[in-house]
Amino acid sequence: MNTTGTLYRLTAFGESHGTAIGGVIDGLPAGIRLDMEQIRHFLRRRRPGQSDITTQRHEDDNVEFLSGIFEGRSTGAPIGFIIRNSDCRSQDYNDLQHLFRPSHADFTYTAKYGIRDYRGGGRASARETAVRCVAGAIALQVLHGMGVTVTAYTSQIGTVALPGDYHQYDFSHIDDNAVRCPHPPTALAMEELIAAVRSESDSVGGIVTCIVRGIPAGWGEPIFDKLHADLGKAMLGINAAKGFEYGAGFAAAAMRGSQANDCFVSQEGRITTLTNHSGGIQGGISNGEDIYFRVAFKPTPTLSRPTRSITDDGQPVTYTPHGRHDPCIVPRAVPVVEAMTAMVLLDHCLQHNSRKSLPENL
Amino acid sequence: MNTTGTLYRLTAFGESHGTAIGGVIDGLPAGIRLDMEQIRHFLRRRRPGQSDITTQRHEDDNVEFLSGIFEGRSTGAPIGFIIRNSDCRSQDYNDLQHLFRPSHADFTYTAKYGIRDYRGGGRASARETAVRCVAGAIALQVLHGMGVTVTAYTSQIGTVALPGDYHQYDFSHIDDNAVRCPHPPTALAMEELIAAVRSESDSVGGIVTCIVRGIPAGWGEPIFDKLHADLGKAMLGINAAKGFEYGAGFAAAAMRGSQANDCFVSQEGRITTLTNHSGGIQGGISNGEDIYFRVAFKPTPTLSRPTRSITDDGQPVTYTPHGRHDPCIVPRAVPVVEAMTAMVLLDHCLQHNSRKSLPENL
Amino acid sequence: MNTTGTLYRLTAFGESHGTAIGGVIDGLPAGIRLDMEQIRHFLRRRRPGQSDITTQRHEDDNVEFLSGIFEGRSTGAPIGFIIRNSDCRSQDYNDLQHLFRPSHADFTYTAKYGIRDYRGGGRASARETAVRCVAGAIALQVLHGMGVTVTAYTSQIGTVALPGDYHQYDFSHIDDNAVRCPHPPTALAMEELIAAVRSESDSVGGIVTCIVRGIPAGWGEPIFDKLHADLGKAMLGINAAKGFEYGAGFAAAAMRGSQANDCFVSQEGRITTLTNHSGGIQGGISNGEDIYFRVAFKPTPTLSRPTRSITDDGQPVTYTPHGRHDPCIVPRAVPVVEAMTAMVLLDHCLQHNSRKSLPENL
Amino acid sequence: MNTTGTLYRLTAFGESHGTAIGGVIDGLPAGIRLDMEQIRHFLRRRRPGQSDITTQRHEDDNVEFLSGIFEGRSTGAPIGFIIRNSDCRSQDYNDLQHLFRPSHADFTYTAKYGIRDYRGGGRASARETAVRCVAGAIALQVLHGMGVTVTAYTSQIGTVALPGDYHQYDFSHIDDNAVRCPHPPTALAMEELIAAVRSESDSVGGIVTCIVRGIPAGWGEPIFDKLHADLGKAMLGINAAKGFEYGAGFAAAAMRGSQANDCFVSQEGRITTLTNHSGGIQGGISNGEDIYFRVAFKPTPTLSRPTRSITDDGQPVTYTPHGRHDPCIVPRAVPVVEAMTAMVLLDHCLQHNSRKSLPENL
Repeated sequence: MNTTGTLYRLTAFGESHGTAIGGVIDGLPAGIRLDMEQIRHFLRRRRPGQSDITTQRHEDDNVEFLSGIFEGRSTGAPIGFIIRNSDCRSQDYNDLQHLFRPSHADFTYTAKYGIRDYRGGGRASARETAVRCVAGAIALQVLHGMGVTVTAYTSQIGTVALPGDYHQYDFSHIDDNAVRCPHPPTALAMEELIAAVRSESDSVGGIVTCIVRGIPAGWGEPIFDKLHADLGKAMLGINAAKGFEYGAGFAAAAMRGSQANDCFVSQEGRITTLTNHSGGIQGGISNGEDIYFRVAFKPTPTLSRPTRSITDDGQPVTYTPHGRHDPCIVPRAVPVVEAMTAMVLLDHCLQHNSRKSLPENL
Repeated sequence: MNTTGTLYRLTAFGESHGTAIGGVIDGLPAGIRLDMEQIRHFLRRRRPGQSDITTQRHEDDNVEFLSGIFEGRSTGAPIGFIIRNSDCRSQDYNDLQHLFRPSHADFTYTAKYGIRDYRGGGRASARETAVRCVAGAIALQVLHGMGVTVTAYTSQIGTVALPGDYHQYDFSHIDDNAVRCPHPPTALAMEELIAAVRSESDSVGGIVTCIVRGIPAGWGEPIFDKLHADLGKAMLGINAAKGFEYGAGFAAAAMRGSQANDCFVSQEGRITTLTNHSGGIQGGISNGEDIYFRVAFKPTPTLSRPTRSITDDGQPVTYTPHGRHDPCIVPRAVPVVEAMTAMVLLDHCLQHNSRKSLPENL
Repeated sequence: MNTTGTLYRLTAFGESHGTAIGGVIDGLPAGIRLDMEQIRHFLRRRRPGQSDITTQRHEDDNVEFLSGIFEGRSTGAPIGFIIRNSDCRSQDYNDLQHLFRPSHADFTYTAKYGIRDYRGGGRASARETAVRCVAGAIALQVLHGMGVTVTAYTSQIGTVALPGDYHQYDFSHIDDNAVRCPHPPTALAMEELIAAVRSESDSVGGIVTCIVRGIPAGWGEPIFDKLHADLGKAMLGINAAKGFEYGAGFAAAAMRGSQANDCFVSQEGRITTLTNHSGGIQGGISNGEDIYFRVAFKPTPTLSRPTRSITDDGQPVTYTPHGRHDPCIVPRAVPVVEAMTAMVLLDHCLQHNSRKSLPENL
Repeated sequence: MNTTGTLYRLTAFGESHGTAIGGVIDGLPAGIRLDMEQIRHFLRRRRPGQSDITTQRHEDDNVEFLSGIFEGRSTGAPIGFIIRNSDCRSQDYNDLQHLFRPSHADFTYTAKYGIRDYRGGGRASARETAVRCVAGAIALQVLHGMGVTVTAYTSQIGTVALPGDYHQYDFSHIDDNAVRCPHPPTALAMEELIAAVRSESDSVGGIVTCIVRGIPAGWGEPIFDKLHADLGKAMLGINAAKGFEYGAGFAAAAMRGSQANDCFVSQEGRITTLTNHSGGIQGGISNGEDIYFRVAFKPTPTLSRPTRSITDDGQPVTYTPHGRHDPCIVPRAVPVVEAMTAMVLLDHCLQHNSRKSLPENL
């Protein structure tokens, strides 16, 4: 449903063109000093209208916090917040009222609920990911205070893919370009591809890679709440996600055990691995190495061209979308991936720590 | 932790070389007539020792049901069951007591819990998947009665991959060969690869594909419990899984929207799609088309050759495993994929139906 | 934490003197036509300032719905809503910043969280019950459409108790008086008692009785989510509640089995009981008879007189509360009891129905 | 359903006359040394056949632990366990197959599930409380290691009630008598009452009081998982429970605030209260004082005399029970109350501690 997490939880609500979107963050430990500017900055990274490769809808994404914060610190009470919708040109969508757009959720929402807020995709719009970013930004602050960093970037747009592994890139370049790619030449090629796709009134998919550093060994709750399984569920729940892999991922299928195994060594009293095909997780529990994973996103289904579909009474129809849409949503998915990652990690941190808290010698 | 599901739930327990493994199935509707022979048959498909490509450990996997069934039917009460462990040559593992085997969970379990049942991998062993198969076999029976079929097969071993898409294969051939591949020539090549890998004291990974047919439109609980997100979490939680993709999957990243979109058409009064890049799920809700997805598995980490690693006090060591291990676990993962799929689907069926049950005109 | 319910869920937030209180209702079936005037009316029953026996704080309790409702009907998406706080004379509370008031939650919140929003009781204030009333009012509408009624009333204030059992009272009188007692002479005695208590700058407790009619047999999820156990938890979670009993309740302790047993009879093809000491629930499942229970509330701890206590550094202090407080909160608890009851019942209705939905002959 | 707890969880299964009862304990921290003799001793306290005031059914209640324990310590993996049923004279129940016994759950289970294991009450039998006692005994060991004690005793049988408050009794006398009452003269009167009731082929109810000492301030998760609300739900879920009150309880309804308020004082650097009408919990959070509460139980519904009832097709019938039944179950409920209390407390301990675990200065 619309709540995620066990001990660090987000309950989310809101439609694309309703009054507001928002959520309730529950389980944040008390006494955390919240950096509001960091939250706003993080939300701006997800916001549309940042460059000419994203939708021109202007969303201010001003978060109003309603509870749970007192004199700048979390109180342990739930944090309610809302972001009012503005610049909603709902009339853009009136002609979609009886239309099932291809590869959108119009049909399935109608099949499931029998009623649908058709304005701008309603609940199924990626508009709701702003709410995830608020809860994620706060989780990131807590993790950062513990020495954990979460960094996502665009590693593929269409057929333009970043070569090699992540160690060779300078993450400080990620926000230097509109596509959020840490490798400037590849970023340029990605931007050119998106421009070309847009000029053809088409859209294109891509892949986001995410790296987590500084996680201690021990997070993850086997057998049904393994760390990578919860990360996978969180990533797959992001709009347009089609796949998730961690560590060697799908490539592991073609490997031999003698290649894939990560040999343990002891370095300066700390146990580490010579390679990291495991992606920092073994048996569903973090091993202290970098966690890295990739999330595949499909192309935006809305194209600015005449499109064939059917009406809700089964009549064939051709329509031309009027709304404002991204030719490629991948760059905007980057902070959403970071947000969902941070939420899962903080939740697992709290779960793991809960059992570390008893007195010795019981 | 060790419970999965919202309305159809499995709570599992048991270590590889403990007294028994088992579980509790909760939420199965009452009055279901259970076919015990089908359950036993399903478990045999997962069991080791089925052919010379799997481990020679002999597990009878006799399930003893302890409750919740009366005169052959479910009563609505929880179904407790156990499978006793037998043929446990625990002494095979005594020398592993202080060893962290590469790419196993020995190190992470020790880091997390501070104590570890080192016999045969303990809780982290794939032995526990037999428990999933019991709950899955029962879910499959219920789904089958509703016209839903779940079929998994091996689509890749190492670099031997099944060509083309799933429609061209005759699923009745899946259990005709030891690798569970529906295409006999490819199956043969896979078997030869595994034999070669075994002769090199190595292991190899692979991919399982799963197809679900007969699902009605409407299952899935956005935004945090989307159908594919729950499927993904369930698959990633299976031992050795490294990746999950559904529909077009990672290939969607390289596609244009004009290629990837699935156009709706009305055929004989039923709304369907001309293509199915969506994989039967849109916006996290089933659309009535086939659901299909792929799960990547890494090679078994245990190799029958001298292997370098370290002891739990950081000393380098070389050891040669004595236990019996599969050179490729992918064929045995096939029924586990089906089991987890069935559990997720039945759970979502119940969740969806719960809200369809109110009187009209409220 | 701050979410309650399995399939019909409320996540609540908000402090007494923060920006707003609010919540998210998740799991309401789609297509329900919402009667906004009924919701407002229900909230007014809980609101302070209704008569001279309640606090004079003026709360408008205007609910703003933000999502999940489209053209007057529920869409199946979560319903976010807020109620802005107004007339918050926070300065009334400045001198309480370092004070632990007796029998309030000031000390325990500080002990638990290390930080406390001291204004008006913060999260621990009964202000949050307005949020419960919104989710409860909607649940009541759904239940009403199914023929289920939920009626609570004040049955005791201090030592003034309503004689006899509930069948003899005309529930249409409940809202005729300020104490919400269906028996006018007793209501008058209760009002006089409250007036006397107020004149002594004291407060007084009481009991709310609740009757549910029209529940079909079969609701309740043994063994850990029995219907009365969930009702009990919901009632005990209301501010100031100290006890819960259903059916014969504590009096059952003194009864013989031969007195307490409810004999089944068949009347006009329907199985019913001659007596109802069971309170409509047997083995944790509704039996179709009236459900009735009682909830005990302690006196308001804030008294308008000099009160001894200590500061947060352990110094003894005498203070005189300046805020506006009810000498008896019981009449205002009546709609809260109804709200929580309705939420539990709708949740159990959905849980029960989920398993009734499968095809026959499985 | 059949799982209880958030971080310390029990999933239970089993019918009175099935093959076995059992459960899965999940979330127990690793490394706890388990005292098996204490567990067996605790189970013996619940077992029938202990004296001539309880049922003569002989249950050995031998617990077989199947997993999660290695070399005498918990491993962090789930602990599966079973207790085989023996001495099940199921034929005693054959004539009850089509009978709805008064104030039993025969009718409601049939109404809910459409099918019923009628042997000895099936799932609705108090036989299942042995499973709760296993999980409770383990929780008690952990709590004991932290300095927390949980003590329950019989405070009322029929109209024989223990005078005064609990401080005056020597708890070491509780197990000296068959009724588990710490006051020998009252215990004798209770035993005489039960003997008289038995000679009349009748049964009688009673009250169990429970005292928790040594709880630190801070446990409890408002607003929906207040400590007393979770205790209340746990107690009400015990078979035959009809009411729960904590602190001043129902008597608080008749009190004035000036009487009921617990004034804080600072004694030797520790904040405490002069009185304890709050029952150790304020705002749903423990305050460090003793927690005390009372649970009311109805008389056993099975009487050894001809009893009127109906068959499942609505025909009136008179039957005489043949099974072995307690004339008063209250003494055997004493350890069950302790077990459920311990489970709730350990669960809340873990929840509270999870958020205390982060580094300072975040």
